[in-house]
Amino acid sequence: MNFVEGGVTAAQGFKASAAAAGIKYQGRTDMAMIASDVPCACAGTFTTNIVKAAPVIWDRHIARELGSAQAIVCNSGIANACTGEEGMQMCSRTAQSAGEALGISPESVLVASTGVIGMQLDMDRVEAGIGMLSPALEGTTEAGHRAARAIMTTDTKPKEAAVVFQLGGKKATLGGMCKGSGMIHPNMCTMLCFLTTDAAISQEMLQKALSADIKDTFNMVSVDGDTSTNDTVLLLANGLAGNEQITAEGKDFQAFCAALRAVNEKLCRMIAGDGEGATALFEVRIEGASSKEDARTLARSVVSSNLVKAAICGHDANWGRILCAMGYSGAEFYPERVDLFFESSAGKIQIMKEGKALDYSEQEATKILSQPEVCARADLRMGSESATAWGCDLTKEYISINADYRS
Amino acid sequence: MNFVEGGVTAAQGFKASAAAAGIKYQGRTDMAMIASDVPCACAGTFTTNIVKAAPVIWDRHIARELGSAQAIVCNSGIANACTGEEGMQMCSRTAQSAGEALGISPESVLVASTGVIGMQLDMDRVEAGIGMLSPALEGTTEAGHRAARAIMTTDTKPKEAAVVFQLGGKKATLGGMCKGSGMIHPNMCTMLCFLTTDAAISQEMLQKALSADIKDTFNMVSVDGDTSTNDTVLLLANGLAGNEQITAEGKDFQAFCAALRAVNEKLCRMIAGDGEGATALFEVRIEGASSKEDARTLARSVVSSNLVKAAICGHDANWGRILCAMGYSGAEFYPERVDLFFESSAGKIQIMKEGKALDYSEQEATKILSQPEVCARADLRMGSESATAWGCDLTKEYISINADYRS
Repeated sequence: MNFVEGGVTAAQGFKASAAAAGIKYQGRTDMAMIASDVPCACAGTFTTNIVKAAPVIWDRHIARELGSAQAIVCNSGIANACTGEEGMQMCSRTAQSAGEALGISPESVLVASTGVIGMQLDMDRVEAGIGMLSPALEGTTEAGHRAARAIMTTDTKPKEAAVVFQLGGKKATLGGMCKGSGMIHPNMCTMLCFLTTDAAISQEMLQKALSADIKDTFNMVSVDGDTSTNDTVLLLANGLAGNEQITAEGKDFQAFCAALRAVNEKLCRMIAGDGEGATALFEVRIEGASSKEDARTLARSVVSSNLVKAAICGHDANWGRILCAMGYSGAEFYPERVDLFFESSAGKIQIMKEGKALDYSEQEATKILSQPEVCARADLRMGSESATAWGCDLTKEYISINADYRS
Repeated sequence: MNFVEGGVTAAQGFKASAAAAGIKYQGRTDMAMIASDVPCACAGTFTTNIVKAAPVIWDRHIARELGSAQAIVCNSGIANACTGEEGMQMCSRTAQSAGEALGISPESVLVASTGVIGMQLDMDRVEAGIGMLSPALEGTTEAGHRAARAIMTTDTKPKEAAVVFQLGGKKATLGGMCKGSGMIHPNMCTMLCFLTTDAAISQEMLQKALSADIKDTFNMVSVDGDTSTNDTVLLLANGLAGNEQITAEGKDFQAFCAALRAVNEKLCRMIAGDGEGATALFEVRIEGASSKEDARTLARSVVSSNLVKAAICGHDANWGRILCAMGYSGAEFYPERVDLFFESSAGKIQIMKEGKALDYSEQEATKILSQPEVCARADLRMGSESATAWGCDLTKEYISINADYRS
């Protein structure tokens, strides 16, 4: 398996495009389309928030009930959440319009939105956007990149990743793009992510792979503790790689899951590192836990703590806040057994041994914590389970962004 | 029942003092003592964090196992948390020293600490501090006020409240002081709070009153989502009011609980309004819930949301974030039934009706949200249960305070 250039257009038979439809933003693209040359098996995971945006309800029906799709239309600027019956009609009219433009049924068009909650979309603008998107579809890396830019809101960078891997002697590709910077917190969760692959795989196995993967990837990302109304991960598989279709567990399914993990982990690190106002990617690794679920709970608790995040912003080795955040997580562990380390490209330092602070160098710790990617690693010395969570530091810029986002 | 001046010295037979012991801060008081003329029934509630500071372990033993105490010694600057066996010895030596100075047994001396985690106390300074505190004890309002200042860390204001009320024809008084500004979040929880009363009440009923009360007071306060290692509420009752001792539920117990609620609610509002970096007290009231627990869960989720708190900082009527935070709380409700209001001294405005935004005036909403105390009130229209939570806005100043607290 190797990482390659590109995102949603990396796999065979997938095209993408972007358009400036004036949905809410001015002077930038704000709609994206992804389309496959042939119908795809479709899997999806969605926000656990009771308040679900209209496109989440639309896509969940397609992913869960129908299981196949051929295109995705996404807009940024307006979330189409808390928009009632009118919001649902926007989804169906968007799918209708895109279906007509692409010569496919509306039920094979997935719809996604991100942006402000509570505003209605202007359907004339959405339809005009689709009129631009459909003829602009291209299978190039550059087209995928344009689509990745069009779905950004407060993101400062587009986020794409792709791998090539072997499936029964055939070359397969899996790639994707995502957006997400605020309102990001564990619980399927996070943001919008669109993944495409040319692997041949049954819908059942596709959903199985995705549902298992997000527990250790997207559900382990936290920027600010808020689980959005719109979070969606969609995965389309069009089978053009020509491998024998994956219909059960085994070597090929494992290879597929490994490719999915590689792409999603890379996208998660990009999301965390680009958290609203962030100056650093903050990784928390829990090792030596007695259960996987405890390891996840502890890693998420630390990565979500405002006090820990503020300390990371200040390059302050404030291990007391880390132990405190582990303590209120609800997971079981023995404080007096914990070993704690800080790690980055500038080195590695042990801060605690068996629950007590070592006489470490604050200067050395500050140097390690001043890098753009820093990691806190705790060994509970209870068992062999581990988990990693990704977040970012909490900065004044986060407040600036969120104190007046709507205006 | 009437509010009166004062705090821990308001009730008969309680004295307080403060001293500058140089524990960690310079040029300010950092130790406080409270002592009763006679032994008291003692109740306490403590942090749920697995990582418990040494004084929490010390006090819990006294409150749960012994049930009586006569004095409290508190220091600010160093939390005596994550300090191992040495930290426990500090507690016992502090109690020993204070017991000798006051002529009471060490087991009747409660100990509390707040400040940086992981540092050891300097016992010489603590003992010198006790040497100053003991002869300085006074029953005046001013002495209570000095004690309330000495226990502050990042607090900007001392926090005291007291009420007088009738118990079986006798005048009783209940007062208290607390500190807490950061690392504050639901779950017994919050901070240090010391309450004193001259009511005569059995230890069993005293603990019952306190345990019931904190569910709707201190456990409903959130500044930053971090549950501290040191959170402690202590309540001492010395019986000098001369009422017939409360030993069971009934009219007197109700009167006592009402007094306790009044004082604690006032202290909670003070803590929330003085949250680190806060410019506004933010109150969230959930009404029409089908269960009390759901109402509490929803109120806490909204008051804890970074995105909602940042919007309050920006005086932005971002109701979408409020509905979103209700949605991921885990409590059941119907988004399409929710009525939402913003209220403050500048007026009252309805923002949503039955889950949809009304065509309200943004200007009017901003005016209401620009006051020092603002309230978001949601009616779920499902049942008759309600709950209130208190927090504050999230500001750049919070980051400044927490990015380099240790230095």
